[in-house]
Amino acid sequence: MDPVIEQLSRLLDPDRVLSEPDELIVYESDAITYHRRRPRAVVFPETREEVAAVVEFLWEHKIPFLPRGAGTGLSGGAVPQSGSVIIELARMNRILHIDYENQLAVVEPGVINIHLSQAVADAGYFYAPDPSSQTACTIGGNVAENSGGPHCLKYGMTTNHILGLEVVLPNGEIVQFGGDGADALGYDLRGLFIGSEGMFGIATRITVRLLRRPPMVKTLLADFPTIEAATRTVSEIIAAGIIPAALEMMDKATIGLVEASIFAAGYPTDAAAVLIIELDGLEPAVIGDVARVVDICRAQGAREVRVARDETERARFWAGRKGAFGAMGRLSPDLMIQDAVIPRSKLPPVLSQIYGIAERYGLQVANVFHAGDGNLHPNIPYDGRDPEMLERVKRASREIMELCVREGGSITGEHGVGLDKVDYMPLIFSDADLAAMARVRRCFDPRGLCNPGKVIPIRRCKAF
Amino acid sequence: MDPVIEQLSRLLDPDRVLSEPDELIVYESDAITYHRRRPRAVVFPETREEVAAVVEFLWEHKIPFLPRGAGTGLSGGAVPQSGSVIIELARMNRILHIDYENQLAVVEPGVINIHLSQAVADAGYFYAPDPSSQTACTIGGNVAENSGGPHCLKYGMTTNHILGLEVVLPNGEIVQFGGDGADALGYDLRGLFIGSEGMFGIATRITVRLLRRPPMVKTLLADFPTIEAATRTVSEIIAAGIIPAALEMMDKATIGLVEASIFAAGYPTDAAAVLIIELDGLEPAVIGDVARVVDICRAQGAREVRVARDETERARFWAGRKGAFGAMGRLSPDLMIQDAVIPRSKLPPVLSQIYGIAERYGLQVANVFHAGDGNLHPNIPYDGRDPEMLERVKRASREIMELCVREGGSITGEHGVGLDKVDYMPLIFSDADLAAMARVRRCFDPRGLCNPGKVIPIRRCKAF
Repeated sequence: MDPVIEQLSRLLDPDRVLSEPDELIVYESDAITYHRRRPRAVVFPETREEVAAVVEFLWEHKIPFLPRGAGTGLSGGAVPQSGSVIIELARMNRILHIDYENQLAVVEPGVINIHLSQAVADAGYFYAPDPSSQTACTIGGNVAENSGGPHCLKYGMTTNHILGLEVVLPNGEIVQFGGDGADALGYDLRGLFIGSEGMFGIATRITVRLLRRPPMVKTLLADFPTIEAATRTVSEIIAAGIIPAALEMMDKATIGLVEASIFAAGYPTDAAAVLIIELDGLEPAVIGDVARVVDICRAQGAREVRVARDETERARFWAGRKGAFGAMGRLSPDLMIQDAVIPRSKLPPVLSQIYGIAERYGLQVANVFHAGDGNLHPNIPYDGRDPEMLERVKRASREIMELCVREGGSITGEHGVGLDKVDYMPLIFSDADLAAMARVRRCFDPRGLCNPGKVIPIRRCKAF
Repeated sequence: MDPVIEQLSRLLDPDRVLSEPDELIVYESDAITYHRRRPRAVVFPETREEVAAVVEFLWEHKIPFLPRGAGTGLSGGAVPQSGSVIIELARMNRILHIDYENQLAVVEPGVINIHLSQAVADAGYFYAPDPSSQTACTIGGNVAENSGGPHCLKYGMTTNHILGLEVVLPNGEIVQFGGDGADALGYDLRGLFIGSEGMFGIATRITVRLLRRPPMVKTLLADFPTIEAATRTVSEIIAAGIIPAALEMMDKATIGLVEASIFAAGYPTDAAAVLIIELDGLEPAVIGDVARVVDICRAQGAREVRVARDETERARFWAGRKGAFGAMGRLSPDLMIQDAVIPRSKLPPVLSQIYGIAERYGLQVANVFHAGDGNLHPNIPYDGRDPEMLERVKRASREIMELCVREGGSITGEHGVGLDKVDYMPLIFSDADLAAMARVRRCFDPRGLCNPGKVIPIRRCKAF
């Protein structure tokens, strides 16, 4: 028997260590199944002390390891390097403490995102970051990826909602970053850890901000004859000083796929684009904003603007958007889910170039956007069994990324770099920039054992 | 002649290098004059290249250095270590680029905070972070300290408004952290740099977010017979889901000092506390919020709630608050300006203990709060020429800090650690926490030359 597995089984119960090949298959990839590698083992600690003991053992023996939540990531961040041990945090799923008066909660990393909002809903609170995977993804995973979601336009990314972290460092030491309600003090290691994609250690306790649920939520569906009109509408809403809770766009290809699927939401299939605009807050404010948004949509050429009459219709408007990736799954066995950012003002020309790139490679592309912050998801359905097609998808993806960067944008808005985007990093960062990142990594993990191979393209160890 | 001065004079014009003792006096301290040390020289670069050349030279010759903006800091962050060269960025004060469509601007570090808001005001925009010193402090200094201000309750600290940074590292290398509108990508070195108190390098170009100016601003002044009533009002406003633009409290001692000074704002001197509550946004929302806030104030026992009738009255309400530190200056030659955070819910008991501590040491204490986020400024007037009194001030300050920490708070809310709070860091952080900070510092500055002596109490170099 593998002595590493043996020792891990001594540190935890043997039934909390998986090492049989058939047990490991599910841990080969995250939600981007394009990247697959088999871990050496998967372990399920249940306490901070167990996490620290496992990490310390692996560190001592120079065995690479990585944390994993629900595996819903979209950049291959939780794909192991060969021989790595996965530390699966799903069993550390307790909400430890809720303090309504100071609007915070302390949770373990395996708590599922939506469970926290559900737990505090009756008291009138919610946890704001809402990735599309929120019914499955964990708050620990959200911390690792600094996850976004439709409502991050108004409420900000995960980093804006995390007050403090207890972290097991790659050498097994336990430290505290940030605090329970204080703003960052000293260097903001809390902020540095959030979005570090599992490379700086494992968060074992997370203090999050709770927000008061807005008393009124109104959701609008507007459809447009051109992408330009929809984009101008987005800019005009924001320029008017209105901050919608969400401001989502879907293009004609996405609308068609959604309407042909079980997620059909009643979107007009002849529209060039639809916007879902959600406004929340106190009643008088929301009522005023709805009227202004309707006016702006009409002035920019919307054909129809519907305000959801009730919660059922509101859920229906959202079902299509949240099911969009699923709907795309009908077209082909695989889906390349992209994630890029461009300056909001450049959406129309960039989008038409994206359609051009896809056409040139004989591919389809369906676009979903968090339009309010210029975060673009161009998605390419394909068949991974066809190596020639796969090659075209890879080339088209790279061209799309290069285009977004050229237009002043970026290669990821919310899905992280992981394994999937690591080769694109030099499009954005100079050697000196990447070397600075490598040095910061080395100060947390001088042995390079904690989730190696992610974020930084080549190992850069420039000495001073 | 000092060969270092000679070489600096070769790198810059000689008239941009100060080294005469009388020239250096003003650079001995920041706005906390309690800490004073003479620098070796002060240099005034005007370009990124000059900054890099100066830094590279000092790095090569192992001479400590530090950046400085306007010297308005309140934690001794810009106080040199003996022999350090101050790199004064006041002349790098150009607004390089404004992009209204994407709501951002690129500025040099020496731009004065309010100048940016003034430059974009006619177009209907503003830059949100507004420290009380905003007419003098620089945006580069705000980045170093992650500055707050009264309006940070709604808008967030400096870190929430900085998109990207060009940084000269301590070895002279130039890197880019963050970007122009993209959310953090890779490790959030942008976030790490902000608030690192000048210890990780010098920002030479800063990309900031611009916000649309709210169409309506309403400012209320409410006065209360007890601190408890004022505090409950703060909690009730926030629990109602209202997010005021600012929510400031002053205690009886502060009110008395303000009203006896040129900053007199018409605050009722017999009140135990006054609140300044500012609401901004679109008209219907603000009008609704004002009505609700007035109701809450009355329900919690406010004696009077005045809504400023016009801009003149609004400015008057604020003049008292913004002049409060100045007003305290009338009492004695020196003022210990403190900065602590406590959970909002604990304001009343903590405050009465703070009064008790001051009384025990025979000192006065006047409190000003950013009440909405539990950020407390207990200020102790004193005469620094009286060593016995100074000793009592130091002891009382430490007891106040220990109290705030014991109650779940923190030792600084917005002024930074600097030199002034460095000894308090172990109240909050364990040795392991501080060692993690020291390692991060070392990865930017292995020679420990860049603003040494700040933030981290002892040099901790624990090796793995």
